[in-house]
Amino acid sequence: MSKNLTTRAEDYSKWYNELVVKADLAENSAVRGCMVIKPYGYAIWEKMQAELDRMFKESGHQNAYFPLFVPKSLFEAEEKNAEGFAKECAVVTHYRLQNDPDNEGKLRVDPEAKLEEELVVRPTSEAIIWNTYKGWIQSYRDLPILINQWANVVRWEMRTRLFLRTAEFLWQEGHTAHATEAEAIAEAEQMNDIYAEFAENFMAIPVIKGIKTESERFAGAVETYCIEALMQDGKALQAGTSHFLGQNFAKAFDVKFTNNEGKLDHVWATSWGVSTRLMGALIMTHSDDKGLVLPPNLAPSQVVIVPIYKNDEQLDLITEKANTIIKDLKALGVSCKFDSRTTHRPGAKFAQHELQGVPLRIAIGPKDLENGTVELARRDTLTKEVIAMSDLVATVKTLLETIQNELFSKALSYRDAHITEVNDFETFKTVLETKTGFISAHWDGTAETEQKIKELTKATIRCIPMDVKKEAGTCVFSGKSSEKRVLFAKAY
Amino acid sequence: MSKNLTTRAEDYSKWYNELVVKADLAENSAVRGCMVIKPYGYAIWEKMQAELDRMFKESGHQNAYFPLFVPKSLFEAEEKNAEGFAKECAVVTHYRLQNDPDNEGKLRVDPEAKLEEELVVRPTSEAIIWNTYKGWIQSYRDLPILINQWANVVRWEMRTRLFLRTAEFLWQEGHTAHATEAEAIAEAEQMNDIYAEFAENFMAIPVIKGIKTESERFAGAVETYCIEALMQDGKALQAGTSHFLGQNFAKAFDVKFTNNEGKLDHVWATSWGVSTRLMGALIMTHSDDKGLVLPPNLAPSQVVIVPIYKNDEQLDLITEKANTIIKDLKALGVSCKFDSRTTHRPGAKFAQHELQGVPLRIAIGPKDLENGTVELARRDTLTKEVIAMSDLVATVKTLLETIQNELFSKALSYRDAHITEVNDFETFKTVLETKTGFISAHWDGTAETEQKIKELTKATIRCIPMDVKKEAGTCVFSGKSSEKRVLFAKAY
Ligand SMILES: [Zn+2]
Ligand SMILES: [Zn+2]
Repeated sequence: MSKNLTTRAEDYSKWYNELVVKADLAENSAVRGCMVIKPYGYAIWEKMQAELDRMFKESGHQNAYFPLFVPKSLFEAEEKNAEGFAKECAVVTHYRLQNDPDNEGKLRVDPEAKLEEELVVRPTSEAIIWNTYKGWIQSYRDLPILINQWANVVRWEMRTRLFLRTAEFLWQEGHTAHATEAEAIAEAEQMNDIYAEFAENFMAIPVIKGIKTESERFAGAVETYCIEALMQDGKALQAGTSHFLGQNFAKAFDVKFTNNEGKLDHVWATSWGVSTRLMGALIMTHSDDKGLVLPPNLAPSQVVIVPIYKNDEQLDLITEKANTIIKDLKALGVSCKFDSRTTHRPGAKFAQHELQGVPLRIAIGPKDLENGTVELARRDTLTKEVIAMSDLVATVKTLLETIQNELFSKALSYRDAHITEVNDFETFKTVLETKTGFISAHWDGTAETEQKIKELTKATIRCIPMDVKKEAGTCVFSGKSSEKRVLFAKAY
Repeated sequence: MSKNLTTRAEDYSKWYNELVVKADLAENSAVRGCMVIKPYGYAIWEKMQAELDRMFKESGHQNAYFPLFVPKSLFEAEEKNAEGFAKECAVVTHYRLQNDPDNEGKLRVDPEAKLEEELVVRPTSEAIIWNTYKGWIQSYRDLPILINQWANVVRWEMRTRLFLRTAEFLWQEGHTAHATEAEAIAEAEQMNDIYAEFAENFMAIPVIKGIKTESERFAGAVETYCIEALMQDGKALQAGTSHFLGQNFAKAFDVKFTNNEGKLDHVWATSWGVSTRLMGALIMTHSDDKGLVLPPNLAPSQVVIVPIYKNDEQLDLITEKANTIIKDLKALGVSCKFDSRTTHRPGAKFAQHELQGVPLRIAIGPKDLENGTVELARRDTLTKEVIAMSDLVATVKTLLETIQNELFSKALSYRDAHITEVNDFETFKTVLETKTGFISAHWDGTAETEQKIKELTKATIRCIPMDVKKEAGTCVFSGKSSEKRVLFAKAY
């Protein structure tokens, strides 16, 4: 097993990088900025996918699949969107390799196999999808279209970090088409609400729902809704976004429909997505210096049983007991694995399961068999207690719910303690550097002020919260009048 | 709703193309050779994925995710594999677009953003995965590695057809690493068996398990196992392959391990995959001139209820009844939807559900309510009967199992009737052109003969069946001695 992690206090960023690798979640690959998601990390992602997919389908969406490539002429059709992504596009220019005549055993791009039109590897799929929707929509009877896609996308980021910012990442992207503006706005808001519900109830991550300022908006959107979370180092992380796209893509791709009054109009659109970035949010919200802490809802195994034994006889008896426990837990919908590896000592197993964040650990030794007890340890609090075997299954079931709830409460307390109302720029800078977290401050509504504050402090406006109250005030930077507070933070 | 399909007798190929589009399964996109998988098609693919994923996990495999891109230097490392795929590779050469100075509002590839090393869009992932495994494997204790990935891959095919052969397709690819040759061979055979079980029990497609000849083998494999199905037009379709890769990739990527005697050895490998091509196999095995026929296991909705009514009062009463039926069926694990669209007449609905292959259709009209009956129609046989409402749920449950079984039996009868033992080349040619199907014939074991037969007849050796019997004979083409028969066919 690996050595101790760097502590968060020592170096939060290093702690994160080490944790991702040592807990077997992901690693860097031979391809610049692209990660390998390892089985343990992927199993957590699959749990997220399953729950999100259920929520999407329950709200009337269907899955489909659109091409990986976007012909350049389609990519550039919606100008703002193209402008926003052009600088980070992987571009396919050729469709064949050939033997390199100058280099025995090596290949080179075949110069004769140049594509007439370059293909962009999708950084997002609005262009290819709206070009397709054009063929599907004639009348209001064809609307709404409520489609989601699970896919990989590529954005050629210069500075990458596992899960948080990678050149290729996995995500879902919903793309919906509507007959009215109001319906599209309602859809965009609904999906942002679904993301918030998922983050809070399933991932135990408290989030603030809000709207982005113009400068932080998705390229091509009229309005970007988002959920913003706060990491343990006081930096914000955008965990999901949902965009009201207006008629921008319908106009760019000439998608019109006959409405119920027989008139032609452009279709209204939304798009919304969450990605493997959520893995980063998960790790940074709950984990500690011993490693990953997983909410029970996301743990590939919610419980692990470690046998403590000196001989085969003892192991046999413990195994028998463990199998019964596993069966009983399974009947209650609790996943439990028995770590019977003979290659590792109990201490090493404990350390590994701590590092990998298994919510509950059961240790059973010969004394426990005699006394009808087990040792039950919580990963989140690192507490343990000896309990009667007869109470075990019920206790585990209850405790998992407790852990799920307490992880959320703990993160919420931290988050709420790190939203600071600030009314002058000196305090703004001090709070940002010393206390960190979100700063709730008045802003004059101009992109100039937003930009200046960013240059001076690295803080950006994370969002204008949905539940913001009207309140007369003056901009923390310019002193101009303002009617509401917005949330600033340094962000991932 | 769409017009009638071209019949299979008229033009099988045209029938297939029309069916895929009209049944809303998939369509061509703006990207040459890439398809859009529409929601109805994707829902069927999701059912395949779920069952395969369950079978993979049950046999000890875990999912993971590896990069979309393969650096050229890794791609070329395993020479045969590289050679096999080099001619159909999409290649990323640049990572940025810029405004085209000669063309207002257009973009062009930024010539300054050329990659130092080109990236191949994965046509298959052995190279990137074995380069990764190198870092994971030191000792026999790290083995076996049993990993599967669900992903998109790209092979730049010149002639494409929806599902059957597309430039981009979806698939799963398993990649396993083993300490011994025997264990790797057992794994490759096991996965081929799992594919066969899935095809037969879940998709109702009978398959022949076999081994590929050298010329049809996967590039880089020592042995390719496969399952071969027979389509209604007498052409074979390779539905899945599983490869024993020997130590080829371990040698190419220098992946060694210390075995349990303390000696260094190269790791043994397998890979195996099935793809959205299975959608093509499904369509061409069961469907008819009225459209898609789906085995109940793969139907997004197994049952549809169509109300027949003249006024709202009647519709209300039918709706009430339908809701009860849906609830009762759901309790038995049967999926049923109520087609209450007011925009379509019953006749149009019937035609659409036939076209889309819903296994059972229930029609309920006012007379049925009076008499306590419903009309129940089978998609596969196109038969219908009036049955008592009180028998409905039990009848549906039984009938779905019957349909699943009968579709398999029907396909099996057709397949078995189209395996013809042939002993001379004249008959070979006649059977191939008139009766079609598989031809079981002696072959002298040489690539030359195989190639000649292919040139003369377009038939290839689909496989050497696993259960082939030793039998002295002479090659159907060369007259040389042979000790077993192999299966020839024209193939997709
Ligand atoms: Zn926000
Ligand atoms: Zn075969």
